[in-house]
Amino acid sequence: MVKIGVVGGTGYTGVELLRILAQHPQAELRAITSRKEAGMPVSELFPSLRGHVDLAFSDPASSALDQCDVVFFATPHAVAMNDARRLVDAGVRIVDISADFRIQNVAEWEKWYKVKHACPELIPEAVYGLPEVNRNAVRKARIVANPGCYPTAVQLGLLPLLEARAVDAGHLIADAKSGVSGAGRKAEIHTLFSEASDNFKAYGVPGHRHGVEIVECLARIVGSEIGLTFVPHLTPMIRGIHATLYARITRELDYQKLYEERYAGEPFVDVLPPGSHPDTRSVRAANTCRIAIHRPQGGDTLVVLSVIDNLVKGASGQAVQNMNLMFGLEESLGLTHVPVLP
Amino acid sequence: MVKIGVVGGTGYTGVELLRILAQHPQAELRAITSRKEAGMPVSELFPSLRGHVDLAFSDPASSALDQCDVVFFATPHAVAMNDARRLVDAGVRIVDISADFRIQNVAEWEKWYKVKHACPELIPEAVYGLPEVNRNAVRKARIVANPGCYPTAVQLGLLPLLEARAVDAGHLIADAKSGVSGAGRKAEIHTLFSEASDNFKAYGVPGHRHGVEIVECLARIVGSEIGLTFVPHLTPMIRGIHATLYARITRELDYQKLYEERYAGEPFVDVLPPGSHPDTRSVRAANTCRIAIHRPQGGDTLVVLSVIDNLVKGASGQAVQNMNLMFGLEESLGLTHVPVLP
Amino acid sequence: MVKIGVVGGTGYTGVELLRILAQHPQAELRAITSRKEAGMPVSELFPSLRGHVDLAFSDPASSALDQCDVVFFATPHAVAMNDARRLVDAGVRIVDISADFRIQNVAEWEKWYKVKHACPELIPEAVYGLPEVNRNAVRKARIVANPGCYPTAVQLGLLPLLEARAVDAGHLIADAKSGVSGAGRKAEIHTLFSEASDNFKAYGVPGHRHGVEIVECLARIVGSEIGLTFVPHLTPMIRGIHATLYARITRELDYQKLYEERYAGEPFVDVLPPGSHPDTRSVRAANTCRIAIHRPQGGDTLVVLSVIDNLVKGASGQAVQNMNLMFGLEESLGLTHVPVLP
Amino acid sequence: MVKIGVVGGTGYTGVELLRILAQHPQAELRAITSRKEAGMPVSELFPSLRGHVDLAFSDPASSALDQCDVVFFATPHAVAMNDARRLVDAGVRIVDISADFRIQNVAEWEKWYKVKHACPELIPEAVYGLPEVNRNAVRKARIVANPGCYPTAVQLGLLPLLEARAVDAGHLIADAKSGVSGAGRKAEIHTLFSEASDNFKAYGVPGHRHGVEIVECLARIVGSEIGLTFVPHLTPMIRGIHATLYARITRELDYQKLYEERYAGEPFVDVLPPGSHPDTRSVRAANTCRIAIHRPQGGDTLVVLSVIDNLVKGASGQAVQNMNLMFGLEESLGLTHVPVLP
Repeated sequence: MVKIGVVGGTGYTGVELLRILAQHPQAELRAITSRKEAGMPVSELFPSLRGHVDLAFSDPASSALDQCDVVFFATPHAVAMNDARRLVDAGVRIVDISADFRIQNVAEWEKWYKVKHACPELIPEAVYGLPEVNRNAVRKARIVANPGCYPTAVQLGLLPLLEARAVDAGHLIADAKSGVSGAGRKAEIHTLFSEASDNFKAYGVPGHRHGVEIVECLARIVGSEIGLTFVPHLTPMIRGIHATLYARITRELDYQKLYEERYAGEPFVDVLPPGSHPDTRSVRAANTCRIAIHRPQGGDTLVVLSVIDNLVKGASGQAVQNMNLMFGLEESLGLTHVPVLP
Repeated sequence: MVKIGVVGGTGYTGVELLRILAQHPQAELRAITSRKEAGMPVSELFPSLRGHVDLAFSDPASSALDQCDVVFFATPHAVAMNDARRLVDAGVRIVDISADFRIQNVAEWEKWYKVKHACPELIPEAVYGLPEVNRNAVRKARIVANPGCYPTAVQLGLLPLLEARAVDAGHLIADAKSGVSGAGRKAEIHTLFSEASDNFKAYGVPGHRHGVEIVECLARIVGSEIGLTFVPHLTPMIRGIHATLYARITRELDYQKLYEERYAGEPFVDVLPPGSHPDTRSVRAANTCRIAIHRPQGGDTLVVLSVIDNLVKGASGQAVQNMNLMFGLEESLGLTHVPVLP
Repeated sequence: MVKIGVVGGTGYTGVELLRILAQHPQAELRAITSRKEAGMPVSELFPSLRGHVDLAFSDPASSALDQCDVVFFATPHAVAMNDARRLVDAGVRIVDISADFRIQNVAEWEKWYKVKHACPELIPEAVYGLPEVNRNAVRKARIVANPGCYPTAVQLGLLPLLEARAVDAGHLIADAKSGVSGAGRKAEIHTLFSEASDNFKAYGVPGHRHGVEIVECLARIVGSEIGLTFVPHLTPMIRGIHATLYARITRELDYQKLYEERYAGEPFVDVLPPGSHPDTRSVRAANTCRIAIHRPQGGDTLVVLSVIDNLVKGASGQAVQNMNLMFGLEESLGLTHVPVLP
Repeated sequence: MVKIGVVGGTGYTGVELLRILAQHPQAELRAITSRKEAGMPVSELFPSLRGHVDLAFSDPASSALDQCDVVFFATPHAVAMNDARRLVDAGVRIVDISADFRIQNVAEWEKWYKVKHACPELIPEAVYGLPEVNRNAVRKARIVANPGCYPTAVQLGLLPLLEARAVDAGHLIADAKSGVSGAGRKAEIHTLFSEASDNFKAYGVPGHRHGVEIVECLARIVGSEIGLTFVPHLTPMIRGIHATLYARITRELDYQKLYEERYAGEPFVDVLPPGSHPDTRSVRAANTCRIAIHRPQGGDTLVVLSVIDNLVKGASGQAVQNMNLMFGLEESLGLTHVPVLP
């Protein structure tokens, strides 16, 4: 059994992580912290967990996180960076679902997250937790930077083309649509039901943190510069990300075959048959990314459709996938839920 | 392993049954029939099942259902009644998720379902599959009539009061709200997104089949006549039933304690603490009924709130619960999914 | 032209009031106040008003409200009561869309609204602005207490039966369902899209302010005591209230005819043909209440279905209807919008 | 008064047209035809029109459409083309909201609509009814081909850039998202609430009829070939189109100014201030197109955001705008509704 601490269990990635861990055969939940809700039974805040999670939220200070094997941070950014040093020194491994260790370029990170990084010296050893790229490094990592939701959908959708140098890497377009849970469980007006329902809009067009993350990570993988126009949109659904990706062809290939071979052994990436249009509900509540590749009208532009559940493969599910790798468990252990449809 | 056939796997109770059975450790899916889709892989119609269900739909005629241990009917009404005789004679047990065996009074059934019953002689032995009432009978049944979705929520909500003869059984009110999936996966205008979204309405106020089912079953349980005003409503959500039940007090009791004791040993009925308001999402995709009981302003009217997922405890989950009982398995085997929230 | 001030234009009743007034041929908007947003153009906060409303929010202190003919309060409760004295003394008439003047029993009001009333001496002269009951009094009122959204739907649904003494007034049941905009435009977690979407729940079952309002007003109209069990529910739609009302018959009548005659001359109450089920979208964005009356299975319980748009007939539309009466305009002036469907 | 006939009033563009015409001061509705619903009062099918439209559906054969001044076709494609000859010969002018006269290239039209055109000889005189481009031609037209919903949003979004030859016209990308009402009021499974709600997907990626329409019309306007990758998506909202448009810069300009000047005199195109993100609800139920233009990170790709209500500016509102032009009325007569928000 892996002894687990969860810091920040009151948000959507938190409750989703608890949902997954409560059904994971090797997970032993030791502590779920929340400064604000300390003392309240977790299942009082989230009645869906009644009978599944018996812990109460505890104060981070008194939670003996340093006696866990692994601590997940399901917090806003700029929390994990303050606790990382202490935990790592105590021999605890970290899966940070927030953004603190995702970007290696500290100056860039500080520019986009508007805060000084508290432990820049730990960033270089943090492993970007996209198992489809960094599986082996994740196994040995002390700190795993769990990818953002958009970056997961976009990178899995573009990787085969970029690795094969089949498209113009300098002019990629990622038009991404996210369910509202991606904005977190915070009291804000723009994500109220009466604002976000029956409505659709783009946001962050001038620039978005996840764009920077995608560009840095893809560039590292591909070994050359990446040019990306990234436009996120708020979609009136709870869960799900749909990335529609556009790339100009530079090299003729059997693109369908390219994708199928690239992801042949991957437990959580499903390349659909030619002509498919994956819908987000086909991965609802599951740790799967489904991808389809199109070449409309035989033109010179490829269109890749990539869908994930932003809270699972885009956050807490991928975090558990990383935990499985870190502790030598089967990679898909506790992650084989069938998507909930309808 | 229980060898299982599913008749009519193309609707919502069908795909939900497959979702549950695909994760059930003792279920061996042998055949999923559909006259219309015969030959098509199940996972082509429902991409959510890719990697989880490898069968194709097969024609009922050629599906060797008689070699199964149990056959589920996830069909519209008036299908199971035609196959029941043959299957029962072949030693196959039946869980009918449709309505064919729910009502013992044949004339009443024929009036509400507007068709002549094809095997009235089998009705008397059919067991109404509400385990919280008929657990032992279900264990030995050849035919289990799986309760309707509304009847499950309403009966579990009213049972303790009626068994205790604490309320006026002649003037019960059940104001019930259902998600749109309760109407099935049929091409109809009134359940189109553009009709049912951002909208709310009652239907069937003059009379509804489920009202008859509730009245007959409650009367049998309580042993006296039942008067019920039942008003169903179409709610703009996919899954979920919320029954708001009103009953006039005839006998003073500790009602909270009554409910807690009645359901103390039940794996799938959760009585909430005093003052609670269960929401439907707290049971989304799970086989649980959550109940709260109120006495507003200390008056003479009790208000009971009862929620289920109409496709799980209100249909396919309860069907598997019944299967577990019929085959001597642990009642909750394969049914302990944590609700999906948000 | 009626010179109009709006206090508190940043909420949903505020923006709806502006939508209606911007198209009203006799309305001259003089000031829209908001302490928080003072200086910001109204159409910057609500782009839907670009080209229709050119004012900026102004500070209440400097807004010369006392030079208006009428001031609408589209505020939370406990604001209007502080300004009423001054405005009335300046000869300004008031339509309070909030709750400050709805309940004549001050002690009761203070108990439910948990604040001391600032001008109890003005309450007796305030007219409860349900034109279908108080039309003449509204015409001469200095202060109109605009009814709550639930109270409007429930009272219009029950009035004919109570006036005719046709039902047991001591045991009424109002099971009411509201769209989320009824909770206002406030940053709160429970009305976030990811909380309220695809979900349904009751709230306030132990007691709700609107229950008290309904009981007091109905009692005054009918002249006898009222017993009411009122259960509100949060429904995943933006606008709309559906009240399902249950009443035990005490006197046989032609109920359909009773309703048709009671509301024969009413411009904004539409009694549907027998057997109808009004849906909330049939009044979306319009100042109409649609009502159907049923007697299920010929029993002793009547079921009345009453729908309104909570922001129009349940708030700002009714407020303008009252304004029209107060200033001798045609009652339906500027209020004949066709409902938006789908 | 303009005497008006509507062919096909049972769909969403039909009911929306009736909503608008019922409030139009110069519209006199003479006939609303429906073969299937002949005899049924329009307000029985659409209770939202009770009190606003008193006609019943009539059989097209007996509807004296040839005595109208104008006939609107709110039908599926391949209906208007059969009636056009006869009506035009009778001196009746036509606004075809369907697709029959939108594409000048008959072979192309027949390929995409999979039917032989019934009156190809009338196509050349049909005017493409985008007033922002063809205002004068519309005034004199006998047949107006009302643009598709996607084409309206996409063309209004791209026009200024193409007219100014500021971008690479051979590699345009239109990532468009539509509410479900765009699919019409037809009994189909994929647009059921339980399929389309809480879900998002692309469709028609290999090719879509509206792509062809956009390419032909833009090419005509610009006078050079157009290369467009057009990807439509189904979005869980009732109304609204959001087009996210990507174009590579070929000529440096003040793009904001370009847009503001191009649309300076347009009553129904609203260019938002720099940095804006229009949401679809800001035009809900109104005949407005709102546009914002961005240049993310100062790169070489422009992003234009263009929103309309697909049933209004994308269909019936634009049809009435065209009617106003055809009959010498003020262009915005009866079309100044304030958008409904929330």
